[in-house]
Amino acid sequence: MGAIEVALDPARELAPPPIVTLRRTVSGALEEDLGRGDITSWATVPADARGGASVRAREACVLSGMPVVCEVFRQLDEGVEIELLAAEGSRLEPGAEVARLRGSSRSLLAGERVALNFLQRMSGVATLTRAHVDALPAGSRTRIADTRKTTPGLRALERYAVRCGGGHNHRDDLSSAVMIKDNHIAACGGLERAIERARTQAPHTSRIECEVDTPEQLTRALAAGADIILLDNFSNEAVAKAVVECAGRALLEASGGIDLARVAALAGAGVDVISVGALTHSARAVDLGLDWED
Amino acid sequence: MGAIEVALDPARELAPPPIVTLRRTVSGALEEDLGRGDITSWATVPADARGGASVRAREACVLSGMPVVCEVFRQLDEGVEIELLAAEGSRLEPGAEVARLRGSSRSLLAGERVALNFLQRMSGVATLTRAHVDALPAGSRTRIADTRKTTPGLRALERYAVRCGGGHNHRDDLSSAVMIKDNHIAACGGLERAIERARTQAPHTSRIECEVDTPEQLTRALAAGADIILLDNFSNEAVAKAVVECAGRALLEASGGIDLARVAALAGAGVDVISVGALTHSARAVDLGLDWED
Amino acid sequence: MGAIEVALDPARELAPPPIVTLRRTVSGALEEDLGRGDITSWATVPADARGGASVRAREACVLSGMPVVCEVFRQLDEGVEIELLAAEGSRLEPGAEVARLRGSSRSLLAGERVALNFLQRMSGVATLTRAHVDALPAGSRTRIADTRKTTPGLRALERYAVRCGGGHNHRDDLSSAVMIKDNHIAACGGLERAIERARTQAPHTSRIECEVDTPEQLTRALAAGADIILLDNFSNEAVAKAVVECAGRALLEASGGIDLARVAALAGAGVDVISVGALTHSARAVDLGLDWED
Amino acid sequence: MGAIEVALDPARELAPPPIVTLRRTVSGALEEDLGRGDITSWATVPADARGGASVRAREACVLSGMPVVCEVFRQLDEGVEIELLAAEGSRLEPGAEVARLRGSSRSLLAGERVALNFLQRMSGVATLTRAHVDALPAGSRTRIADTRKTTPGLRALERYAVRCGGGHNHRDDLSSAVMIKDNHIAACGGLERAIERARTQAPHTSRIECEVDTPEQLTRALAAGADIILLDNFSNEAVAKAVVECAGRALLEASGGIDLARVAALAGAGVDVISVGALTHSARAVDLGLDWED
Amino acid sequence: MGAIEVALDPARELAPPPIVTLRRTVSGALEEDLGRGDITSWATVPADARGGASVRAREACVLSGMPVVCEVFRQLDEGVEIELLAAEGSRLEPGAEVARLRGSSRSLLAGERVALNFLQRMSGVATLTRAHVDALPAGSRTRIADTRKTTPGLRALERYAVRCGGGHNHRDDLSSAVMIKDNHIAACGGLERAIERARTQAPHTSRIECEVDTPEQLTRALAAGADIILLDNFSNEAVAKAVVECAGRALLEASGGIDLARVAALAGAGVDVISVGALTHSARAVDLGLDWED
Amino acid sequence: MGAIEVALDPARELAPPPIVTLRRTVSGALEEDLGRGDITSWATVPADARGGASVRAREACVLSGMPVVCEVFRQLDEGVEIELLAAEGSRLEPGAEVARLRGSSRSLLAGERVALNFLQRMSGVATLTRAHVDALPAGSRTRIADTRKTTPGLRALERYAVRCGGGHNHRDDLSSAVMIKDNHIAACGGLERAIERARTQAPHTSRIECEVDTPEQLTRALAAGADIILLDNFSNEAVAKAVVECAGRALLEASGGIDLARVAALAGAGVDVISVGALTHSARAVDLGLDWED
Repeated sequence: MGAIEVALDPARELAPPPIVTLRRTVSGALEEDLGRGDITSWATVPADARGGASVRAREACVLSGMPVVCEVFRQLDEGVEIELLAAEGSRLEPGAEVARLRGSSRSLLAGERVALNFLQRMSGVATLTRAHVDALPAGSRTRIADTRKTTPGLRALERYAVRCGGGHNHRDDLSSAVMIKDNHIAACGGLERAIERARTQAPHTSRIECEVDTPEQLTRALAAGADIILLDNFSNEAVAKAVVECAGRALLEASGGIDLARVAALAGAGVDVISVGALTHSARAVDLGLDWED
Repeated sequence: MGAIEVALDPARELAPPPIVTLRRTVSGALEEDLGRGDITSWATVPADARGGASVRAREACVLSGMPVVCEVFRQLDEGVEIELLAAEGSRLEPGAEVARLRGSSRSLLAGERVALNFLQRMSGVATLTRAHVDALPAGSRTRIADTRKTTPGLRALERYAVRCGGGHNHRDDLSSAVMIKDNHIAACGGLERAIERARTQAPHTSRIECEVDTPEQLTRALAAGADIILLDNFSNEAVAKAVVECAGRALLEASGGIDLARVAALAGAGVDVISVGALTHSARAVDLGLDWED
Repeated sequence: MGAIEVALDPARELAPPPIVTLRRTVSGALEEDLGRGDITSWATVPADARGGASVRAREACVLSGMPVVCEVFRQLDEGVEIELLAAEGSRLEPGAEVARLRGSSRSLLAGERVALNFLQRMSGVATLTRAHVDALPAGSRTRIADTRKTTPGLRALERYAVRCGGGHNHRDDLSSAVMIKDNHIAACGGLERAIERARTQAPHTSRIECEVDTPEQLTRALAAGADIILLDNFSNEAVAKAVVECAGRALLEASGGIDLARVAALAGAGVDVISVGALTHSARAVDLGLDWED
Repeated sequence: MGAIEVALDPARELAPPPIVTLRRTVSGALEEDLGRGDITSWATVPADARGGASVRAREACVLSGMPVVCEVFRQLDEGVEIELLAAEGSRLEPGAEVARLRGSSRSLLAGERVALNFLQRMSGVATLTRAHVDALPAGSRTRIADTRKTTPGLRALERYAVRCGGGHNHRDDLSSAVMIKDNHIAACGGLERAIERARTQAPHTSRIECEVDTPEQLTRALAAGADIILLDNFSNEAVAKAVVECAGRALLEASGGIDLARVAALAGAGVDVISVGALTHSARAVDLGLDWED
Repeated sequence: MGAIEVALDPARELAPPPIVTLRRTVSGALEEDLGRGDITSWATVPADARGGASVRAREACVLSGMPVVCEVFRQLDEGVEIELLAAEGSRLEPGAEVARLRGSSRSLLAGERVALNFLQRMSGVATLTRAHVDALPAGSRTRIADTRKTTPGLRALERYAVRCGGGHNHRDDLSSAVMIKDNHIAACGGLERAIERARTQAPHTSRIECEVDTPEQLTRALAAGADIILLDNFSNEAVAKAVVECAGRALLEASGGIDLARVAALAGAGVDVISVGALTHSARAVDLGLDWED
Repeated sequence: MGAIEVALDPARELAPPPIVTLRRTVSGALEEDLGRGDITSWATVPADARGGASVRAREACVLSGMPVVCEVFRQLDEGVEIELLAAEGSRLEPGAEVARLRGSSRSLLAGERVALNFLQRMSGVATLTRAHVDALPAGSRTRIADTRKTTPGLRALERYAVRCGGGHNHRDDLSSAVMIKDNHIAACGGLERAIERARTQAPHTSRIECEVDTPEQLTRALAAGADIILLDNFSNEAVAKAVVECAGRALLEASGGIDLARVAALAGAGVDVISVGALTHSARAVDLGLDWED
């Protein structure tokens, strides 16, 4: 994966997707799309034909996914050469060239769609994330974070794409942090008891996050010592009041009903984290494509 | 899967997703989200607590994905009971109740997110497809079709969701039909030769589709005997002319740069198929959620 | 896989097996045969012993499977060198040398059986296919085609072997084309209705094939617009009449009870496709073996 | 799997295939054949249609594979009911009814081909094995045994089929017994040394088998204490002489160039085991099919 | 899994292992041990023989692993009935009966070894953990925690076993919490900078843990705001001083060179967590076995 | 894997673990520990930082597992270079350097724990085995053997570790040899009948082992022609008497209640095999670690 590492901008220290998971995901995607093989190319493209292509942005976007593209072609044909021309996480203008590919025409054609399916989707996530990050006031310390509302099977890649867009990751999965919601509170017999039990039982490396629906619950959660409080569907004003009340005793996370228009206000109010399910569940694919050389 | 079958409206004869693939996909998604287990519920919810919840639409949408939801809970806990209240592919009003779940509270909480991640995404695809189908003129025989621009790993489920929305499926993968594009033509030494070679080599069960960029190519593809011709990025007017020229000698498919606004005009022009990558690559999740019983 | 590509005769443009599936199939076969390891070679062959061997035909046959053989040894030991001396699909005389292997003796011995199990079986399929193809009259345009009667788990490789023998592939699987049989007709309420429904619902890239048992059904299937008609267990004479009646309105496929002796007559009658389950379900292994160098 | 157990004749104590491997193999086969689903049945068969079918022999054969057939339908649809009417390993006359199936027509149609692909192949192996066993003289204690020349991925099922035919299994894989061949002898520096090293290093539960090409090697292998001696390509006369020389000091196995015609003579000569690669590498499928109820 | 749930003591609210992972792990273990099947039982035990057995402790221990035992037999044969007689996590006297099994003798024999391999190992982990927990002074709030030094492939099950023994889990894996060690500090250019960067980049749900080797590093880590400080190889006295200095500003974890003899002193000193790699990397199997009924 | 082979001492002819299984096991372990990635290193270690480390023994032990360590890093990053400095199976003094690693600091840190988890466990097995082998009298021909009491999922690696410690392997799994225990005898209706049936039905390559509890059973098992007799929980004296009675007619294996202290006496009594479950089920991890270069 040497070529890919080179392309990552060391200054951004972008955390890459885990290679073993990436490799398994790509194998599955290739089997899914290849079926018993690319019958069109077999019929029309000579086995020894070689070609080249450029990956180009066809609209302004943020790049994410070239390590996956490299793995797609590596699995199909180690003879495909890829020159990376843009760093993951970089902003691309329409027409920007991202990479150059060269190798067997059949291999390039066989991998094109799978490669682009990953790249367009991941860059879509990165681009939507970047839009939210860019909506933060200058110098803001508020984070834009993802959620567990990811595409089944693609969580590691989508969380990476969020990082490419300048966002942060929320907890990975149900076992990596505590998030107490109203059902837990009801089943446990009260907010304070739920926080207490979680503190007692969860790994000491995990923070205790508690979701609250009302200012009154916020007060109780703070008193009970929650490390993080998720303000669920709070208005901008309610968030601002919560920040004042909290006074740094816990991290505050705004979530639910967030859109781009509210980001600046929420950040201005001083909330620590804004988590946005749409980053992964509703990002549209961005248009990146292959331009074939003549 | 008896309960699910019951819920499918026999009159629509909706083709279900293949169960073996569905089962494998769900296992992977559950391992991805559960990690080493749901530490929050373990800490706060008694092992013997039981609860119930309704799956409800929170916006108008078309339903797709309840067989996947059922499989999620079946894998987690065979004791969870699901009553299905709406047919796959049905139009839901905001607030419509789709299903009732009852069982171990821990099991319901552990499966909620994965179940909704599938359901919201698939219903999103179905809803966007339905919008395109609804844009067809009354009585139109034009099809709205998907493409291979699906989410890696979820092709079978997304194609099913397209069917739930009233759409049709395009070829499954690279081996199930021939699609000749400009690169194939260039590598093969001409459009006629590419069609001829494909006809000679591809399975006789596969139609030969050829993508054309210009009216002149259309004329040549028709003469060469293509079964289907993809009109790539043709204007509405160019499509209309193509229909006239084709005169039923081949199926015509419009693709590239299609949006909802053009569907009526394209169908009115008499094109056979409108294929829309956005159905699967850019559908946003629709809001379906769990309302917990008190 | 560069070395393998070189060995494929570009003039034949033989469509290779999909590499990702091939790789997975080989891994499984190696785990199956190696168990906890080759205890005989461990005990008797020094770890640093190196050897060589020739793959040779021990009877006349058609070669298929060397890409699989290469992958077997690549997975076991990247240090094994393979020189390919005969093209896939080529006719071999008894004694013909197909490849030379050189490397660690332990690796060669550990992989020998799995490699030959693939090679003998695939070459068996190719050889039986070639016998059918050779039975076609000179200049015939009739195809010899396989069926879905393949070995579970080996479909992609066996279809490739059929191509190596000069045969053609039928539909890949249940989702890649429509094949209406008598049960579908009975369940659907008539042949015409079944064809109509399939045309309405199946992907537009798929041809509609309908199996018929009688000349009367043939007439109805032609009238209903089937793209392909499978003549099930028709005599040579009945096939000849069907060709006349069809007059090019549909492709005709003869199937059921075909043996080598009937191929010439059926092709002479002008049928388009002869599909033969035996190509994959009853081909015997051909004798290819390893001759070890002294 | 209760229904299957019932069908196995307790008197024969037929050793079943391992269920976990069987289950995994069937899952893979179903995914391979279903692709994205059975588009023909979806289009033509109502979701609520139910049907029945009989599995029948269409030629004389020995039955093997119904546990696999049961698993195929169990994975597709737990509602399919199967009544088993013939025991595994039983001899079937043409027309014999083996089982009755009843359930959703779509499920029956979707599983038919995969089920038969297993059943025809396994019954083919059982039938060919039985032919060899039947060729033994009455009262003979000679075994007909399989080899490692099995279909990649299907070893456990094919070995079970051999048992259904009255045959015995040879070693499972490279790790479950020692088999010294000429290459091992050459690499080790002599037959005696190879046997000695194997005896010293292999698990004490494994017998030491040595392949010999000449009577002189036989003498040496006996002297060196081999537990089993494989007489490779010995004539009937040479085998008879070997039996005399061996005088019960080792088990003798005849292999290589065996055909049905030689079985009686070899057994008559008193060889302990006749191993036949063809049982698994060259058995043709036997004709078992589904007769649908009207 | 109903029977298992019943056996879990609701008062302890023991967090179970995730079922999907458990199921996959058991499948793999069964394939590993069954190979092509249990040839001894096939030969000697009638197919219809039924038997019973009791799982009993043969030494004092803490029970962990019965849900895995249940899954082993469920996968082999759904007809095996298991009555659970002791709760997971309970202390067993020598001779205590843990469960009664009844079903096909072949199934019981085939699953015995795999079931016990899991049960003995997991109960070994639980027992060793319990010994450490019991060594804590009465009323102590110090936790005994595991580490990432688990058996490859069994992490979820071993962490569950730790919980059965009254221990707590540390972070699940490299992605679920931050742990800064000396290499990170060196690569990052200083302890303060490493903590700062981790706080900036890691998920906000994760606490920041920093390992320190000296009291001076402890002072710096506290000043830098680490949430948890791992005191690596500190003497009991040094730990006591650290607790005083820390004064509740961070959680303190003692690790490295811990043995049972030091637990009381370390807890007495007030450390929050004692993490012990030996719980999972060096627990010996405890003796639990099957007593067969006559 | 060339580098690894070099490190294996050709004189010991140590049988390596099967590479395909090793590779799959390592992939699983890496996914298990990496989760969505190493968030600590991402935050604190520059992407282009390179480092080095030595693998060193921190206590006296026998080395086993470096091929696994190599595979761990190969899967993570092919750029990591490993120089092997000690042969598998060699005895290490405290402080001995086993290997030098050099490469990306992030890759080294990401793989460290998984690599050591394998290495410490496997070297623990090898070390415990070696202690038993060393307890044999000089010149003894008695074998120390493992059992099926291995860690689920790691059997191939643990059996290799036993070989590294100078031990021998028992049967691989339930299908690779016959082991008749009291339950089989009871179900079969007598020891003689069980041995007879096993001899009749098991592969001829498998020896027939029979477990006996009393001298009387031993006499019967010898008379019945068992190849191997397992003396279960016999005292040293009883074993000695058994050896005399057996007089070489069968291999004798002592098992049950063996500890290191009894090995010399048992071997002195002339038993052929001493099998010790503790080698794999109760070996503690030995302390091998990474020393990072400054």
